[in-house]
Amino acid sequence: MSGYPYPMLDPPSFVWTHTSSGTGDMKVHQWVKTAAGTVPDWSDYDVTIIGVPLSKSSISSSSASENPDAMRRAWKAFYTYNIDEDIDLQEMKAIDLGNVKQHVTDIAWTHERIQEAMAVMRIHHPHTLPVILGGDHSITAMLVKGYKQVHTHETVGILQFDSHFDVRDPEELGKANGTPIRVLIDSGTVKGAHVYNIGVHGFFNGKTLKDYADKHAIHYMTMKQARQRGISNVTRRVLLQLCQHVDAVYVTIDMDVLDITHHPAAPASAPGGMYSEELFEAAAIAGACAKVKAVDIVCSDPRKDVAEISVKTSVQTMLSFLTGYTKRLQKQGRLRM
Amino acid sequence: MSGYPYPMLDPPSFVWTHTSSGTGDMKVHQWVKTAAGTVPDWSDYDVTIIGVPLSKSSISSSSASENPDAMRRAWKAFYTYNIDEDIDLQEMKAIDLGNVKQHVTDIAWTHERIQEAMAVMRIHHPHTLPVILGGDHSITAMLVKGYKQVHTHETVGILQFDSHFDVRDPEELGKANGTPIRVLIDSGTVKGAHVYNIGVHGFFNGKTLKDYADKHAIHYMTMKQARQRGISNVTRRVLLQLCQHVDAVYVTIDMDVLDITHHPAAPASAPGGMYSEELFEAAAIAGACAKVKAVDIVCSDPRKDVAEISVKTSVQTMLSFLTGYTKRLQKQGRLRM
Amino acid sequence: MSGYPYPMLDPPSFVWTHTSSGTGDMKVHQWVKTAAGTVPDWSDYDVTIIGVPLSKSSISSSSASENPDAMRRAWKAFYTYNIDEDIDLQEMKAIDLGNVKQHVTDIAWTHERIQEAMAVMRIHHPHTLPVILGGDHSITAMLVKGYKQVHTHETVGILQFDSHFDVRDPEELGKANGTPIRVLIDSGTVKGAHVYNIGVHGFFNGKTLKDYADKHAIHYMTMKQARQRGISNVTRRVLLQLCQHVDAVYVTIDMDVLDITHHPAAPASAPGGMYSEELFEAAAIAGACAKVKAVDIVCSDPRKDVAEISVKTSVQTMLSFLTGYTKRLQKQGRLRM
Amino acid sequence: MSGYPYPMLDPPSFVWTHTSSGTGDMKVHQWVKTAAGTVPDWSDYDVTIIGVPLSKSSISSSSASENPDAMRRAWKAFYTYNIDEDIDLQEMKAIDLGNVKQHVTDIAWTHERIQEAMAVMRIHHPHTLPVILGGDHSITAMLVKGYKQVHTHETVGILQFDSHFDVRDPEELGKANGTPIRVLIDSGTVKGAHVYNIGVHGFFNGKTLKDYADKHAIHYMTMKQARQRGISNVTRRVLLQLCQHVDAVYVTIDMDVLDITHHPAAPASAPGGMYSEELFEAAAIAGACAKVKAVDIVCSDPRKDVAEISVKTSVQTMLSFLTGYTKRLQKQGRLRM
Amino acid sequence: MSGYPYPMLDPPSFVWTHTSSGTGDMKVHQWVKTAAGTVPDWSDYDVTIIGVPLSKSSISSSSASENPDAMRRAWKAFYTYNIDEDIDLQEMKAIDLGNVKQHVTDIAWTHERIQEAMAVMRIHHPHTLPVILGGDHSITAMLVKGYKQVHTHETVGILQFDSHFDVRDPEELGKANGTPIRVLIDSGTVKGAHVYNIGVHGFFNGKTLKDYADKHAIHYMTMKQARQRGISNVTRRVLLQLCQHVDAVYVTIDMDVLDITHHPAAPASAPGGMYSEELFEAAAIAGACAKVKAVDIVCSDPRKDVAEISVKTSVQTMLSFLTGYTKRLQKQGRLRM
Amino acid sequence: MSGYPYPMLDPPSFVWTHTSSGTGDMKVHQWVKTAAGTVPDWSDYDVTIIGVPLSKSSISSSSASENPDAMRRAWKAFYTYNIDEDIDLQEMKAIDLGNVKQHVTDIAWTHERIQEAMAVMRIHHPHTLPVILGGDHSITAMLVKGYKQVHTHETVGILQFDSHFDVRDPEELGKANGTPIRVLIDSGTVKGAHVYNIGVHGFFNGKTLKDYADKHAIHYMTMKQARQRGISNVTRRVLLQLCQHVDAVYVTIDMDVLDITHHPAAPASAPGGMYSEELFEAAAIAGACAKVKAVDIVCSDPRKDVAEISVKTSVQTMLSFLTGYTKRLQKQGRLRM
Repeated sequence: MSGYPYPMLDPPSFVWTHTSSGTGDMKVHQWVKTAAGTVPDWSDYDVTIIGVPLSKSSISSSSASENPDAMRRAWKAFYTYNIDEDIDLQEMKAIDLGNVKQHVTDIAWTHERIQEAMAVMRIHHPHTLPVILGGDHSITAMLVKGYKQVHTHETVGILQFDSHFDVRDPEELGKANGTPIRVLIDSGTVKGAHVYNIGVHGFFNGKTLKDYADKHAIHYMTMKQARQRGISNVTRRVLLQLCQHVDAVYVTIDMDVLDITHHPAAPASAPGGMYSEELFEAAAIAGACAKVKAVDIVCSDPRKDVAEISVKTSVQTMLSFLTGYTKRLQKQGRLRM
Repeated sequence: MSGYPYPMLDPPSFVWTHTSSGTGDMKVHQWVKTAAGTVPDWSDYDVTIIGVPLSKSSISSSSASENPDAMRRAWKAFYTYNIDEDIDLQEMKAIDLGNVKQHVTDIAWTHERIQEAMAVMRIHHPHTLPVILGGDHSITAMLVKGYKQVHTHETVGILQFDSHFDVRDPEELGKANGTPIRVLIDSGTVKGAHVYNIGVHGFFNGKTLKDYADKHAIHYMTMKQARQRGISNVTRRVLLQLCQHVDAVYVTIDMDVLDITHHPAAPASAPGGMYSEELFEAAAIAGACAKVKAVDIVCSDPRKDVAEISVKTSVQTMLSFLTGYTKRLQKQGRLRM
Repeated sequence: MSGYPYPMLDPPSFVWTHTSSGTGDMKVHQWVKTAAGTVPDWSDYDVTIIGVPLSKSSISSSSASENPDAMRRAWKAFYTYNIDEDIDLQEMKAIDLGNVKQHVTDIAWTHERIQEAMAVMRIHHPHTLPVILGGDHSITAMLVKGYKQVHTHETVGILQFDSHFDVRDPEELGKANGTPIRVLIDSGTVKGAHVYNIGVHGFFNGKTLKDYADKHAIHYMTMKQARQRGISNVTRRVLLQLCQHVDAVYVTIDMDVLDITHHPAAPASAPGGMYSEELFEAAAIAGACAKVKAVDIVCSDPRKDVAEISVKTSVQTMLSFLTGYTKRLQKQGRLRM
Repeated sequence: MSGYPYPMLDPPSFVWTHTSSGTGDMKVHQWVKTAAGTVPDWSDYDVTIIGVPLSKSSISSSSASENPDAMRRAWKAFYTYNIDEDIDLQEMKAIDLGNVKQHVTDIAWTHERIQEAMAVMRIHHPHTLPVILGGDHSITAMLVKGYKQVHTHETVGILQFDSHFDVRDPEELGKANGTPIRVLIDSGTVKGAHVYNIGVHGFFNGKTLKDYADKHAIHYMTMKQARQRGISNVTRRVLLQLCQHVDAVYVTIDMDVLDITHHPAAPASAPGGMYSEELFEAAAIAGACAKVKAVDIVCSDPRKDVAEISVKTSVQTMLSFLTGYTKRLQKQGRLRM
Repeated sequence: MSGYPYPMLDPPSFVWTHTSSGTGDMKVHQWVKTAAGTVPDWSDYDVTIIGVPLSKSSISSSSASENPDAMRRAWKAFYTYNIDEDIDLQEMKAIDLGNVKQHVTDIAWTHERIQEAMAVMRIHHPHTLPVILGGDHSITAMLVKGYKQVHTHETVGILQFDSHFDVRDPEELGKANGTPIRVLIDSGTVKGAHVYNIGVHGFFNGKTLKDYADKHAIHYMTMKQARQRGISNVTRRVLLQLCQHVDAVYVTIDMDVLDITHHPAAPASAPGGMYSEELFEAAAIAGACAKVKAVDIVCSDPRKDVAEISVKTSVQTMLSFLTGYTKRLQKQGRLRM
Repeated sequence: MSGYPYPMLDPPSFVWTHTSSGTGDMKVHQWVKTAAGTVPDWSDYDVTIIGVPLSKSSISSSSASENPDAMRRAWKAFYTYNIDEDIDLQEMKAIDLGNVKQHVTDIAWTHERIQEAMAVMRIHHPHTLPVILGGDHSITAMLVKGYKQVHTHETVGILQFDSHFDVRDPEELGKANGTPIRVLIDSGTVKGAHVYNIGVHGFFNGKTLKDYADKHAIHYMTMKQARQRGISNVTRRVLLQLCQHVDAVYVTIDMDVLDITHHPAAPASAPGGMYSEELFEAAAIAGACAKVKAVDIVCSDPRKDVAEISVKTSVQTMLSFLTGYTKRLQKQGRLRM
């Protein structure tokens, strides 16, 4: 591969100098390579990471734009080895391509760059799984559109962990963090019946949003229902159903699906949500599913965090997803190590 | 109804200007009407809310006096629609009557006003269910007395969620937040055998208090026992038992019943307590019970809160109770909408 | 005056219910009337307050959008009486017209509404002095343009308290919080020689910004210089000079001019800045100057505040300015009380 | 002296085990002896310390009741040696008599105990200087009354450092923290003309309070005036004037006289106040004045503190006062070491 | 017993003055006697408490050195009576012997004192159960060595609650908080097969550490496995197995085994951990086991705490362990009351 | 220069990817080059920066070890251009050599590496001025010894900004943060008469430490004295005196010299200290003095910081020193640009 194909990306603002010894234990920041304006000449990667530091598109004030770098700093505390599953992420190769460029005052411009970044990544790194670090939930609409732009013939379904439907009206709000699912449905990018939401609960969705969801045949299971059946069981069953109808599944994890005690840092963090160990299980199941092609983690605002609970949980959500993905590659015989 | 019958009440210090559109989604602050010195000429309400900003009566320093306004500010983040139960609180009508007047240095004076407020509310709004936002637990004794003052012939029972018995000696402390149950029993207002406590646990009650509870036949179930049987099951059974012996049930929720992770803001918050989703379930069950006639939420000190966990949990506790109450009214065919 | 002339304004999200007794002591929240969709039929006001909850236009993430309501809550702790000057603001009449409407994702739309709000206010309340509660510094460009739109023949000068020049390039950033002075100069709205900056200091301006300032003859005095001469003396002299060349002076106070100990809540708060008592003096002097026609207070982000230091200081800055304005009106014989 | 003459006092809740070596450097917690239910058989002390953990009498919610123990914990970080003045407090003897007993719900009862404590202390420790650690400002009225109860023929004057007059109406509030000076004047305990207030400023006193102050000939100097003349100079002059007319001066330091940056922990902390080094100087001057017979430090709420700024400042205020007192005793030849 | 046998101990820095009435309810700080340089002449105690304020030996910066005093202050909020188990700790006698002396810059010196303290305590208080309040995990190696130094012929096993193996290489780190189990195994003090770890999980152990654990036959159960079987069940079974092979069991509780929501204050606090009520159960089971001879609680850094969640949980962990111990003594007929 | 001469250094844990454009404005993190295991082939640098992440040697628990990286992150907010002085640091070249390697448990080993690092730096970069980012004050003794090891014939004097003498006894504490000046005097490295301390104040030094200072002829000026004369004036005079007697001046800035409001993050932060603008002036004066050969900034613990006040102040202290150094080089004609 010649040249740097990502003009719409900035490198992460910093790179770790800690180098791995090549053998033995490794922390995540040593494992994830950083592409600072150039992509090392490897045959390919298994995982590409992109940060999307946009949260000006949030309905209530949010600094989720600071999340990508916050996660990069936080994953320095994690090893690549998952003792619960006896899986070492080092079996895969991962590269951090940096952050989508941001315009200070033109949100639409930034949204175009996000779509573009996903599209170019699908072209240049077709065999990798993109992990996107948000930013707020508005980015999901652009990312899925970017995916569809390249994979025009694939039917895309969405597995959404969220305490909201996110089907508010873009006519009123623009492409804001409350609208991505509706943007995708109304634009015909994704069918309502191909959206599965796990985790809506409590008093955080107006009735009209439920009516929209019902009208468009969005599948959803409330937290209460999901917990009674087991989050893991529900996630497995949802993926099974979804995979029967779509070619590719995009997983979007709005961290406000978590209980406020387990993730205080979302603008809409609330009691009555999912617990982190439940989300870790679900993320691992999603990562292992062959049709899952991309994942984003959104709406975590580091400035609202308490004792780093939220950012550590966001990182472990990503690593749990990647544990599942490692299992998938093992099963597919795709790991080269 | 002519004139304002509540001279012992101040309006809430602020009112929201956001008006509902009349149709469609509504946030709680748009749904709850505010009576600022006048009561709108509706036939009647289903719910009356009163704040009691008193916490000078607390044994350890508390600013639970700031909780009523903190809850009013926090409920702006909640819709009236409960997706877990598919219930919309808008089916009912609610009015916020404001706060009981406070004397800066004369706690006894304030206690009298609290009793008076409950009594007058029972006379002027006999068909509504009062929701009282404390304040500390000392107010429960006054509120139950106010209720009995009007409903002199009713036998009143108490369903108490609390990590304490609250039967310390008023001879020593006065009518403090550690004494309300004893004040009620010793004054003959409520029989010990009509008090059911769910949630005592750990090392937060002296042995002599248990002895008092045993001597007066107070029913209690420790958190450990309650969790083994399921908080919901226990709550249902307790209400069943209680309703066989009393005419009216007063529900008092001391927020320190919750685990410190789920409610850090009580003066006595401690580990080993109830989880918020357990309390929400229990509150909904209580709200649905036909003999439940009033509820208070006490001992939440906003200044000790972390990331708004406690105040959001207090609000959702109230809304969960009201979800149950909506179901009750539906069942009773009392809803006018 | 018939009808509500401000379609681009929302009322403040809440109004205080505390009413003044008409005589005697009054807190600021009792003194400032609130126009919730209607303007009371008084002959006129002396002061109009507008909130501009916009900070999406900030270069670094900011929640200054929450400042207008934060100031409204905080001024409840202040009396109208200034004992240092023996001036009671009650001699004047003030009205809070609410907040400029915001678009969630279209910053340019919001900027237009801001300009419009100032223009309409100059037409409908020509005798009043507008006090604008930001929001970030991008709004100043729109507000001055709105002023000029009405007062087309006036030469407008700017008295700026700021640790930055705010002359970064709008070509690159759009109309962001680092660009307002340049937007005004480049558009010909204000001449560089009519801009006086007090408070630039330290390492917070690149050299090229100083070069721009020099090239456009912007007057500035560093904090070090200003303190040696006395902030009050400097402010008086600057106004004297400015008033010889312009018809109207717009005062803009970027709260980051303050030392980080006195105002931790600006995105760019830094050590080495002005002290609050110095700013209060300067603000009072500006308020008393006959040609000063408007003032804004910007770049205070309540989420970054510590112990309410910043928001209380913002309020007292406003009240100090109004103390000067009261003196001006006294001197002009314009007070009706 | 036989027996423990202070039935209205509890010992401090803890005592330090660190013992001084008898010679050499000493921390304050080693220097201050603790009387835990018994008074060591020394001939006499120079300083008696009493805590008054009462803040239920505060207008706005306050935990200043926790200040006495907070100061005791904080003074462990201070040596007895003041290098600025080359004075070692070890030249004097100090004893901590503990805290005035508190009733949980009967503020009047507690107020009586406070008065009693001062009276008994004057009888049993007539040669010592009492240092009282508040608590809120309501206690000053009781303490001065207790002093007068014993020293019936002395004319008592008050030197008050405060941002408020504290002359609100006890008819309305009871003996609250906003009323002590008025309680003393209205009861004839102290003449208005014998009250000197340094530090009133800003927008924190209603005009009617100033009118009361003027009517009763209270002397006051605003912060602005005081700073222009120098706080030290003003304090010296005030004491000179006061000592010409009274037999004894009671010094009361409301910590809200300090700028909010130097003492964020008062309920009414505000910008524009005194700086800590100015207060330290003033306190030392007061301590050195022969007619000063007692001092209290009030309205510091440890729960509102930031980085221990407030409590350390409270301790150093006390130690600065005692530095002055040591000088006084040196001059009077009263030191025994 | 004559003289004070603990020259390597300092008394706790403070002692509570609150004395118990001898009968009735008691708080923990009233129940635990304090030995300030002398040991009261009782026949014997059941529990000895020692603080080890060492955390300079931590890999990442830690103030766990402040934990012993933090726990002493926090247990003032706990009664001795455990209502869940209807057990009153007052049936036993406990003494706080103080803290192991610390060298400011010589960690090896301090480690020797820790070993010495345990050894001397086993000699002078052979019938008591030592409870050690860390400090960081490095102290466990020294404490077990001190135990073995006296009980040379006992085989010692370890029950470890931890999210880490703590078998990093002391060649590289010295006796740090990541190495204690390996120090004990490599020195032959404890066999790998006699170490049982409950709670390793997530991404917090490198693969080579697991390899070390496997090579030395350390038993471990991940959090996920343990939770599926029930933490209580697992603890019971582990103790059963362990007791078949060893003479004495040393219990070490690294508080980072807890989920970050339940204990934010460990340097390595992370999501996905144990919940406090699970740890309380496990601790009680361990306390009741006849072969358990000592327990430590380590790696809780009070400066990282949030709302006292961690320190209260640490105290309740200790009290839960002692509840089990009380049951053991009851069963053994060893209680004298 | 061939090879990397600093085996005792680690690179900083991260490097910024932001590259300067070569012309125009630059932030400090773009200006400071980073040597990650290799030193770029330039003729020479003007400034070498070294981090010393050691604070295990602190008497009270400190995380000043985290300060070097905290300062590196914070200086990203500062431009190289100082508008107060119209000086651009870009005129000089600076390189960040990284951090001195640390042993987890062997403080003496680390101290040797610190001395070694300074010695090697003086040999390999003889023309540069070293700026050392502490760490605690113990490092100053090692750094001065490292300097003397190379420059054996130079007489070294010390200009110390500190609220303490730092002459506690190393016999008792080892080479701790309270002892560096005494370590240097007792070892004959520096004469007491060549030590000038500005800023001792308050109650933070025992009398015996003053006696030691007097006995060894250490010069000191209390904060009160220094402020009366002007910190700048005093600094100038001290340097004048010192330069008459020594060949080289080592400047050590203990950040606890600052008032607690201006630097809350030192373990010993206290009221009554220096203000940041005073320290900035003094640092600039020191940087400009021809005989000043090195500077360290110590005892700033980022975990105790509030709103980044302390770390921003530490950075600006360094930049102010370098502003003076730039002036020195301009005057000496040594700048190559």
